[in-house]
Amino acid sequence: MTGAGRPWPGRLSLNQATVKKLSLDEAVGLCARHDIPAIGLWREPVAEAGLAHAAAAIRAAGLHVSSLCRGGFFTHADPAARAAAIADNQAAIAEAAELGTDTLVLVSGGLVPGSRDLPLARRMVADAIGELVPAAQEHGVRLAIEALHPMFAADRCVITSLGEALDLALQFPADAVGVVVDTYHVWWDAALFAGIARAGERIASYQVCDWVLPLPADVLLGRGHVGDGCIDFPPISAAVAAAGYTGYVEVEIFNETVWNAPPDETAAMVGARFPLAAPG
Amino acid sequence: MTGAGRPWPGRLSLNQATVKKLSLDEAVGLCARHDIPAIGLWREPVAEAGLAHAAAAIRAAGLHVSSLCRGGFFTHADPAARAAAIADNQAAIAEAAELGTDTLVLVSGGLVPGSRDLPLARRMVADAIGELVPAAQEHGVRLAIEALHPMFAADRCVITSLGEALDLALQFPADAVGVVVDTYHVWWDAALFAGIARAGERIASYQVCDWVLPLPADVLLGRGHVGDGCIDFPPISAAVAAAGYTGYVEVEIFNETVWNAPPDETAAMVGARFPLAAPG
Repeated sequence: MTGAGRPWPGRLSLNQATVKKLSLDEAVGLCARHDIPAIGLWREPVAEAGLAHAAAAIRAAGLHVSSLCRGGFFTHADPAARAAAIADNQAAIAEAAELGTDTLVLVSGGLVPGSRDLPLARRMVADAIGELVPAAQEHGVRLAIEALHPMFAADRCVITSLGEALDLALQFPADAVGVVVDTYHVWWDAALFAGIARAGERIASYQVCDWVLPLPADVLLGRGHVGDGCIDFPPISAAVAAAGYTGYVEVEIFNETVWNAPPDETAAMVGARFPLAAPG
Repeated sequence: MTGAGRPWPGRLSLNQATVKKLSLDEAVGLCARHDIPAIGLWREPVAEAGLAHAAAAIRAAGLHVSSLCRGGFFTHADPAARAAAIADNQAAIAEAAELGTDTLVLVSGGLVPGSRDLPLARRMVADAIGELVPAAQEHGVRLAIEALHPMFAADRCVITSLGEALDLALQFPADAVGVVVDTYHVWWDAALFAGIARAGERIASYQVCDWVLPLPADVLLGRGHVGDGCIDFPPISAAVAAAGYTGYVEVEIFNETVWNAPPDETAAMVGARFPLAAPG
């Protein structure tokens, strides 16, 4: 997270996925041109740029890194695949530290291949996180458990609500494990506000984008700019602030049309819409 | 519901939506040919057949009616539209009674047109149900609140989990308001089993179909035959039985491929797969 003390308008972070077609250097340049103070990174474009180069470029630009996406995908029947996932997450923790962020976003993984056992998959996620806690503490990186929308429960993430993510996080030390509040994934939940209040300092990341209808053929790509859809952002942002969150607000939009738009237009739109997601 | 005392294999009900292209008379004939003892009805095909004719045909065939789908859609900005919805639901209650079922399934409606206020929509749903309780009691018909999958929260149903449906139902007398457990809509929920146990005698309907991947372009139609998807039915069915539910189990599948299959094949498949959804 970081970003403490800044007023909301200065707490905007552009998640790299919003401008997916840009290289890391191009995304860094875009943030600089649009006075966006922070960026949320993804491992793949960081790897393409080279980790050391990426870290240096970001530092040279004076950008903060609000989070690294992503670790996770812990649900494997094959012990070798599970061990590989743990090793990959350990590498992701080290990368986060080198990039200067204290937050690694985790997407847990779906059902275990060949299995319909949801509780089993959830136990595997908990076990894996437990195994990663020492590395997280050693590197000063918090594992941020992200609840994904329940429509992704089978194939991407068995953690389907903020309350569930929080119950999982609370099994581990607060400096090592937190939660993500992502409006797209949790806006529908009648227990959302209770969950945010209960989460308090466990909120490690706040991500925003809108729920737009109709859902596209690929439901992964149905997200919209803040204000283009159904989500009432101000009460959610106010609750996140009231819970004590002082970090950046990441705008993360998976949307083919947004990806095909000129990146400077996208950045301008993200900036223009950002006040809608700020509390008052 | 009804169906009390029968062993599970005798508690199969075919929801009419599974054989959407059949008329009411054809669906009744299909159930008779396949020894399916009960049917879940929809108002539109009942109206096409004529209410009195439908009731007589079902009675003549010795079929039980496990539920009538559906009432609801209570979220309106326009007072006239709201009044029309209440009147329509009162008519649906009377139709349910005439058709010989004690269960009217309610789909609450999405966000109020022009509004992003989810709590407002939820209050409208609660208000409308309260207004319908006297009619429900007078006719001996229970209003069965159905939680729909959260991916339908914006446009179809702001009640998104069994726990939320139950909290709403508990505001009203048990003889007037219950809940639906529909596997397709609630299977992902970490609080599902706690919700089912807490629901107890409030469970007014148990509907089954499977969650199949990938989601189709129209996510309304992504349901599959029991066993074709990701849902682990036996523990859910066992929990529903342990909660005290003794009614029919309705197989309700919205799926273009299933609709285009020969109805006798569909009915045979529904019968063959039904044991997978029965507890032990």
